[in-house]
Amino acid sequence: MKFTPTERAYIAGFLDGDGSIYVQAKKNDTYRYGYQVAPAIVFFQSAKSEKLFREFYEFLNLGLMRKRNDGVMEITVGRMAELLQLIEVVKPYTRLKRKQLELLEQILEAKEAVGDRKSFSNLLRLIDGYRNLNYSKKRNVLTP
Amino acid sequence: MKFTPTERAYIAGFLDGDGSIYVQAKKNDTYRYGYQVAPAIVFFQSAKSEKLFREFYEFLNLGLMRKRNDGVMEITVGRMAELLQLIEVVKPYTRLKRKQLELLEQILEAKEAVGDRKSFSNLLRLIDGYRNLNYSKKRNVLTP
Repeated sequence: MKFTPTERAYIAGFLDGDGSIYVQAKKNDTYRYGYQVAPAIVFFQSAKSEKLFREFYEFLNLGLMRKRNDGVMEITVGRMAELLQLIEVVKPYTRLKRKQLELLEQILEAKEAVGDRKSFSNLLRLIDGYRNLNYSKKRNVLTP
Repeated sequence: MKFTPTERAYIAGFLDGDGSIYVQAKKNDTYRYGYQVAPAIVFFQSAKSEKLFREFYEFLNLGLMRKRNDGVMEITVGRMAELLQLIEVVKPYTRLKRKQLELLEQILEAKEAVGDRKSFSNLLRLIDGYRNLNYSKKRNVLTP
């Protein structure tokens, strides 16, 4: 673990305060089961504190940072290995987003284990259940 | 200190991610020098996570929580003693809001020390300088 306990707790606090954990299942026929499953943990900040957010990004050293057209800075952690690493970092210290993190872990495991249409349906059901926990009102998942 | 180091770092991360540190000087003729000086540190969260935010409030045990009409939950720490306590808690761990916290400390000291119109003008100048650090575009201070 490259972070100290207080650094891990800091990242957990930042994520609880301002971060977002979500899983999208987008209909996409070029994928094997007709859906692209895209989990992500995202940190946000106003571009007014761009310089400091860049420093946070260097400290975190995970994900990709971009500046949106509406002036919001985002660090998106979407790659499987990095998601697992970030979950490991924050898990003992998270307070508000504990359930989301645990369900995301299950979804990542289910995603790794997908071998047939049935296990993929299970994955989609997990993702569908996730919506109830999350902030977003949008329905990202259509059960197949 | 009632918090452990990782609890302090967590609160600092939460504040960096989602919190706001501000000082308002509102024109108010019922105050001695014509202004009410109101510093505050505020934590926000969507009312969708109201239950968990209440738990965070119990854990923090500072400030006042309220639910705004627009559905946002707020914990506002505005009393001098509590502000000093909170600054002490997060200061070693804050990354993005370090400058705001340091300037807020100076403002709180200057506010305590106000004895005449001249020292009050100094206080207002400190607050005015604060705007450049802060997120808000609104001009809260009119130099007297």
